[in-house]
Amino acid sequence: MPGLKRFVLGHAMHNQEVQHQRLSNPIALAVFSSDALSSTAYATGEILLVLAVAGSAVLKLTIPIAMGIALLLVIVVASYRQTIKAYPMGGGSYRVASDNLGTFAGLTAGASLLVDYVLTVAVSVSAGVAAITSAAPALSSWRVPIALGLMGIVAVANLRGVKESGAVFAVPTYGFVVLIVTLVVTGLYRWLTQGAAAIAIPVSESLVATAPLTMFLVMKAFASGCAAMTGVEAIADGVAVFREPTAKNARTTITWMAGILLFLFMGLSVLAIVAGVQPTEETVISQLARVLFGSGVAYWLVTVFTTAILVVAANTAYADFPRLSSFLAADDFLPHQMRDLGHRAVFSNGILLLTAAAAMLIVIFGGQTSRLIPLYALGVFTSFTLSQAGMVIHHMREREPRWKVAAVINGFGACVTGVVLAVVVYSKFADGAWIVVLLIPTIIAYFLWVRRRYDFVREELRLRPEDLTDLNWQSYNRMHNHVIVLVKNIDRRIIRAIQYAKSLRADRMEALYVDIAGDGASMRARWDEADFGVKLTVIESPYREIVRPIVDYVRAVPRPTDDHVVTVIMPEYAPENIADNILHDQTSLFLKTSLFSTPGVIVTDVPYRTSDGADVTKRAAQPSAPAR
Amino acid sequence: MPGLKRFVLGHAMHNQEVQHQRLSNPIALAVFSSDALSSTAYATGEILLVLAVAGSAVLKLTIPIAMGIALLLVIVVASYRQTIKAYPMGGGSYRVASDNLGTFAGLTAGASLLVDYVLTVAVSVSAGVAAITSAAPALSSWRVPIALGLMGIVAVANLRGVKESGAVFAVPTYGFVVLIVTLVVTGLYRWLTQGAAAIAIPVSESLVATAPLTMFLVMKAFASGCAAMTGVEAIADGVAVFREPTAKNARTTITWMAGILLFLFMGLSVLAIVAGVQPTEETVISQLARVLFGSGVAYWLVTVFTTAILVVAANTAYADFPRLSSFLAADDFLPHQMRDLGHRAVFSNGILLLTAAAAMLIVIFGGQTSRLIPLYALGVFTSFTLSQAGMVIHHMREREPRWKVAAVINGFGACVTGVVLAVVVYSKFADGAWIVVLLIPTIIAYFLWVRRRYDFVREELRLRPEDLTDLNWQSYNRMHNHVIVLVKNIDRRIIRAIQYAKSLRADRMEALYVDIAGDGASMRARWDEADFGVKLTVIESPYREIVRPIVDYVRAVPRPTDDHVVTVIMPEYAPENIADNILHDQTSLFLKTSLFSTPGVIVTDVPYRTSDGADVTKRAAQPSAPAR
Repeated sequence: MPGLKRFVLGHAMHNQEVQHQRLSNPIALAVFSSDALSSTAYATGEILLVLAVAGSAVLKLTIPIAMGIALLLVIVVASYRQTIKAYPMGGGSYRVASDNLGTFAGLTAGASLLVDYVLTVAVSVSAGVAAITSAAPALSSWRVPIALGLMGIVAVANLRGVKESGAVFAVPTYGFVVLIVTLVVTGLYRWLTQGAAAIAIPVSESLVATAPLTMFLVMKAFASGCAAMTGVEAIADGVAVFREPTAKNARTTITWMAGILLFLFMGLSVLAIVAGVQPTEETVISQLARVLFGSGVAYWLVTVFTTAILVVAANTAYADFPRLSSFLAADDFLPHQMRDLGHRAVFSNGILLLTAAAAMLIVIFGGQTSRLIPLYALGVFTSFTLSQAGMVIHHMREREPRWKVAAVINGFGACVTGVVLAVVVYSKFADGAWIVVLLIPTIIAYFLWVRRRYDFVREELRLRPEDLTDLNWQSYNRMHNHVIVLVKNIDRRIIRAIQYAKSLRADRMEALYVDIAGDGASMRARWDEADFGVKLTVIESPYREIVRPIVDYVRAVPRPTDDHVVTVIMPEYAPENIADNILHDQTSLFLKTSLFSTPGVIVTDVPYRTSDGADVTKRAAQPSAPAR
Repeated sequence: MPGLKRFVLGHAMHNQEVQHQRLSNPIALAVFSSDALSSTAYATGEILLVLAVAGSAVLKLTIPIAMGIALLLVIVVASYRQTIKAYPMGGGSYRVASDNLGTFAGLTAGASLLVDYVLTVAVSVSAGVAAITSAAPALSSWRVPIALGLMGIVAVANLRGVKESGAVFAVPTYGFVVLIVTLVVTGLYRWLTQGAAAIAIPVSESLVATAPLTMFLVMKAFASGCAAMTGVEAIADGVAVFREPTAKNARTTITWMAGILLFLFMGLSVLAIVAGVQPTEETVISQLARVLFGSGVAYWLVTVFTTAILVVAANTAYADFPRLSSFLAADDFLPHQMRDLGHRAVFSNGILLLTAAAAMLIVIFGGQTSRLIPLYALGVFTSFTLSQAGMVIHHMREREPRWKVAAVINGFGACVTGVVLAVVVYSKFADGAWIVVLLIPTIIAYFLWVRRRYDFVREELRLRPEDLTDLNWQSYNRMHNHVIVLVKNIDRRIIRAIQYAKSLRADRMEALYVDIAGDGASMRARWDEADFGVKLTVIESPYREIVRPIVDYVRAVPRPTDDHVVTVIMPEYAPENIADNILHDQTSLFLKTSLFSTPGVIVTDVPYRTSDGADVTKRAAQPSAPAR
């Protein structure tokens, strides 16, 4: 098992290695921008899908909607450039909102982002599978297992650590960008030189309108397209991972990302309308690539790289979710396990939690992108708005050089994203956004509960000066110990347990057997025959319960003062390997859990091991050894 | 949590109650026959689906194929009637094949049946969802979550116990039988009085043949239809649950079941052909009910009861899988936990394992019946064949009255089911049966491994006379104890742990701190200041590992003889409730697991509880109490 862990995860990392895990700009662009860039693989298609209910003629509204989203992107990125400058150590929305708007705003941003990161994984992986099933429709019934498999690969890659992720994932990101740029340029060139007919996709019949074109429908199409905006905040969150000068490098990188994203998204949207793409099971990119590149190598490269960048996009969330969880855990809002670096200096628990949550979404929504989209983008716009509003307060407090310009940029960003958030919630509420609207306050309530518990326990455990008074060594023997050895069977385990129990020199000692099958009398006879020199107590349990009678018995042991403790000794068999473990009963585990919270009780496992067996035999062979 | 357990599962059952869990014939028919009867909901449709690739004209072959399956049913049931007589205590294939053909045949039957029970759950629940989506096609994209939800209900019902299952599930079974009999009679009456046109289903276009009609295709259709046969063995397995005279009651019940099954299956198949049912997303029963009953109350009743009996069918496997697992566990072929009756006198672990395995199949195959069918029936025909072959040997050995007739019936059954098994494997191999063909030997290998391990451990732990020689009380102080108190922080937990450690009167004692963040020196200063009277050892861990350095340190403690043990004391905080548990770190759990297998080491948890906190404070208030 340690061997397996090392093979899958690689060697453990020294603290000094950890600090070298900084990323160059091109690698950082690949790691942090794949989410935003890859969303061009589905954003246009989602806009078309919403508009389609109003008929073919309406599809061309995609272009103005895409332009609106592009404008929004420019505003948000300009705003985040201010944030990066002000928070060179990493200005995640959680940190910015907490610092400037107070804890509650910070937790709202935190909860929103956690939800959105889970959706990023589910949506990206589902869209990656859609790229595969567009090329090979026969696989469409295996959507969920394929999605879960792809996600598993990303999870393992991340458990191995971020540097490998950068190297492994740069190729797909740049490959995708080059291919889609080629696709867009080829399409536009052919359209301008040979006319629209040269790139027209053969369509069997035009879509029939089943609903009127309303303002609500346009808002919904816009809200669906806003999925293209998710992930834009990733660079601002991860500034600390850039090389020095971190802020400058991060600002350069976010600008590059925005430029590339704009070109891809607008290019694909315009081309889709010109070529007459209709929303079908086949993705927009696949339809365009078939018409422009044919079905040869180029088409397959597009499929492979689209899938690959979408898998890498899931990776963005795998970088951010565990990091944000660790911030929250460091502030006592999440269990401390989320804060602890694992074997490979990554936040293993955060990675596992993210994987489980995303897998649940993929199973429930059948791995279909368009069914997940209504839940998406809501969290990210909540955090955009809070982060930018927080930056306005920050500028007003800090009054750094040129703070007024920065405050205006951030203020404008906050207003715009706030309005978009309202549009997203309103237009997608009935389609699934309500789930997220309910989930975010639930998560915040959990954060606050965790914090309250940690505060309580810290106060509970705090050492007061008077606690030390009775610890001087003269009084050590004031604690009275009543030892109970549990008996399952008379075998070598019992020998070891009784030897150990006797070595504790307790005040009282007894053995305890629970009779669930009416064999109490025969056990007593065998016990007496073995002559262990320890009294056996037998209790009956007609409900075949083992745990409860033992707990009741132990609770009933007289403890005249709190200085009396009961030590329960559990003879166990220690198997040699992990597969063996489940062969040996779990009752003792339940028992330990129950006794753990019983006042005055201390549990001791005495495992019998093959090597200990050697002890017994050896001692047995030299019974005349003197007592020491 | 105990409150929740009781609410969901009901009160615990006394051993005397357990024996009263016997079933009357009508209840037993509902509990054991629902699997076989409910398969009429999809068996005809699966035959049609296979034949459809050869075009509409070929669909009428469904009738001779169904007749072949009906004949097979008669042969198998006649054979099982002999088994019930010979094994009135429950003649599962595992038992019959083990007794008469040897262990290996028994394990083959056991593995085959376990696999088929899992498929029974997955197929039945998926078919139940198909009944729902036939009535409400809008739900078809929620197939998997609905299927998992239905299965969850069955699992909880079974964790509550079998008697409630009988009462709850009789209504759906009988309701389904009455409704489908009404449907068949109505259809046949209308056909005979008004002609086929009166019941014809309006069809948009006839199916185009995409493949020729081959013998292979007919075999595949037959093999798919054989899904109707699964569950026939359930009564023979469960004879012991019938009332006295058990064998006679079980034989009567299996005959009734076969009669009802024959009528429903043949009736639906004939009607489907006459009415011109084509295999679509809508089930055969739904198509027939729409044309014969309209869309009113009767149609909805059919939908509700079809879903209900299919859910109940999953319940058959929930009765059988845990029972068979418990037989295998009792013979040391599966972990003993599968043998232990839980809180409510049911085999809880078997129920949970079955649920997990079926859930995995539902997720992988998208909750679609026809994708699961190629894996199905293979296991059950393996066990049919082995069971009946075993009976032949049984008759030849026992030579009970009229044994020759019985041997001929069983021998003929074995030959026929053996041939059908070959047909099933051959015709479905490429479609998924290969998975089962690989899985069964794997499971058998696991059975044999488990048995070998139990044999090994039993021999290991067996008490030899010489083991007792050094246990006389004079030598109890020969064990030398070196106590190590682990230190995470200096707080109230440490007080309790040191008090307890001192009470053990060990030969040596020290405290141990692992420095993962460079704070070793400051910890030592605080430790010295607190003046616990115990030496603190600090070890550095630049890889931020806690578990490994501790294990290494403990291993390195000198143990000049095997009589020297190391007791590791872990100060813990015992939270007051379960939700709190995950807030308190899991490192100690990993540590315990690692130390469990370290020779000569014994681990003791010393939990600090709020109530113990009261101890500390109280003692602190009376520091002058005399040492005892």
